[in-house]
Amino acid sequence: LARTSLAKDVLLGNRSAISKAITVLEDGLPGSSEVYRMLSRAAGRAFVVGIAGPPGAGKSTIINCLIKEFRERNSKVGVVAVDPSSMITGGALMGDRVRMLEHSLDKGVFIRSMASRGSLGGVSTATRRTILVLDAAGYDYILVETVGVGQTELDIAKIADMTVVVMMPQMGDEVQAMKAGLIEIGDVFVINKAELEGADKAVLQLTLAVKEKDGWKPPIIRTTAHRCAGVKELTEAIERFRKHMTPERKSQIRKLRTREEVLQALRKRIDDLIHERLDSAEVLDKVTEQVLAGRSDPQKAASELMKFLFGSVDEY
Amino acid sequence: LARTSLAKDVLLGNRSAISKAITVLEDGLPGSSEVYRMLSRAAGRAFVVGIAGPPGAGKSTIINCLIKEFRERNSKVGVVAVDPSSMITGGALMGDRVRMLEHSLDKGVFIRSMASRGSLGGVSTATRRTILVLDAAGYDYILVETVGVGQTELDIAKIADMTVVVMMPQMGDEVQAMKAGLIEIGDVFVINKAELEGADKAVLQLTLAVKEKDGWKPPIIRTTAHRCAGVKELTEAIERFRKHMTPERKSQIRKLRTREEVLQALRKRIDDLIHERLDSAEVLDKVTEQVLAGRSDPQKAASELMKFLFGSVDEY
Repeated sequence: LARTSLAKDVLLGNRSAISKAITVLEDGLPGSSEVYRMLSRAAGRAFVVGIAGPPGAGKSTIINCLIKEFRERNSKVGVVAVDPSSMITGGALMGDRVRMLEHSLDKGVFIRSMASRGSLGGVSTATRRTILVLDAAGYDYILVETVGVGQTELDIAKIADMTVVVMMPQMGDEVQAMKAGLIEIGDVFVINKAELEGADKAVLQLTLAVKEKDGWKPPIIRTTAHRCAGVKELTEAIERFRKHMTPERKSQIRKLRTREEVLQALRKRIDDLIHERLDSAEVLDKVTEQVLAGRSDPQKAASELMKFLFGSVDEY
Repeated sequence: LARTSLAKDVLLGNRSAISKAITVLEDGLPGSSEVYRMLSRAAGRAFVVGIAGPPGAGKSTIINCLIKEFRERNSKVGVVAVDPSSMITGGALMGDRVRMLEHSLDKGVFIRSMASRGSLGGVSTATRRTILVLDAAGYDYILVETVGVGQTELDIAKIADMTVVVMMPQMGDEVQAMKAGLIEIGDVFVINKAELEGADKAVLQLTLAVKEKDGWKPPIIRTTAHRCAGVKELTEAIERFRKHMTPERKSQIRKLRTREEVLQALRKRIDDLIHERLDSAEVLDKVTEQVLAGRSDPQKAASELMKFLFGSVDEY
């Protein structure tokens, strides 16, 4: 009953209810199923924008400017900032994030910073649930920032309706190497710090690399985010993409997202089961020793563990 | 029989056999179990050094210098470079990597660049197997470079006997935030680009943050890697750490590493099973639709899938 009223308060846009609902869903507290279902029925209207790019490119600064632009257009904005710093140590709020929090005084803005937990699918499950709550609470745009490269970005691209990729000129070899992956996921590209030398070259390189998909040619926008220059154009590009997206495509994305969420819950369940049953069992130690001694190998050891865990299931 | 002779050729240090064995183990080709076991019996002598740090800090350049130093000391060096660029597009060799390949003409150096596959445990399983082959083939030091932040680095820290963390002065907020995690995994720290302004401050900050563990106070070394300055000191620090490590600790690490490898093989097996049984099944679509309609939630859906997959196993 308390949970029913919590979900209702979220739908009314009550801020402390939103915070609490996110915690309830993230931590799977009692009643979370009910909250999930109630919010789920109300959700599906928000537009989720992933903000990806290498560290230092200026993603947080751009988000700050985007918040201002969307607010001027009377759109409510939610922000989910995934913070990998907290992975081991418990996290710290850095300068950019602190600046972001200034917007928290605005009722039309809700910011949630979350630790990436380093566990299997931990970030994306928590991010998905936070998005669900903000969506149900009536936020029009939900910006999802991720710090980091590789898997996390791909995860965010799967979650979002569109992805904005932020880069800057003068990126080193290593960042160049990441670009290949970033180019595939971007619907809009930003060259931030456009006042730096090399910006023209960066735009040109991107122009050659970026390809049209589904009738949309990803635009490349120059920004100087520390004074929000160019972010108006970025906002317009986001709005254009939103209009470009058909309802069919949108509901297709939502279905894929839900399917992935179910699969992640399944994987988590299995992972918990593995720990629960193996951590105290001697069988894991035994097969590990056999592999160490060269009398077995990980594949064979995995087969034995499958038998131990799931017994009668046919052929692994 | 062919596999037996392949493993023997690896033990003799034959380069094409090493390449082939890595492929056989990575892809789980026929006979891979046998190869794994034979190599496993010969392995355990190499010292595995993880090289972690934010993009652009100069990890590849430092590895190039380390290779030279170790070769001057007559140590054979293997390098495993994990390349996230290939995650979606198939990968590209960038400048630093190409420079690294120059060493490939030296018989005492073996370099393997591997794509991070983005799949569950894909990188670390492949990395572990490559390390096994190089270890069995008699390489004294195996350097594992990873591009990226967060989970991948933690994975590498789990695999390596020690971890060198490479940073540079003048890192932005975002990189600062990552530092917290990096500090926990470093056994030796490098401030590269030590000629840049802010190097003294970076060293001081690190000195304050780094803590002694197990009788080892992680040293902080300044380098200017593009001319290999300071890398002699780094090499000596690595050798010191190697001597500092007791045989008990070393075998404990090896056991943990093997245990983790077995668990990853298990997770991979389960993941394959999930795909095999669910991709063609209607049940996944059904439960997804229920969640979408707000009639179910991911937890409940996961329970249904557990029943579908593993049937009679008790209580999930």
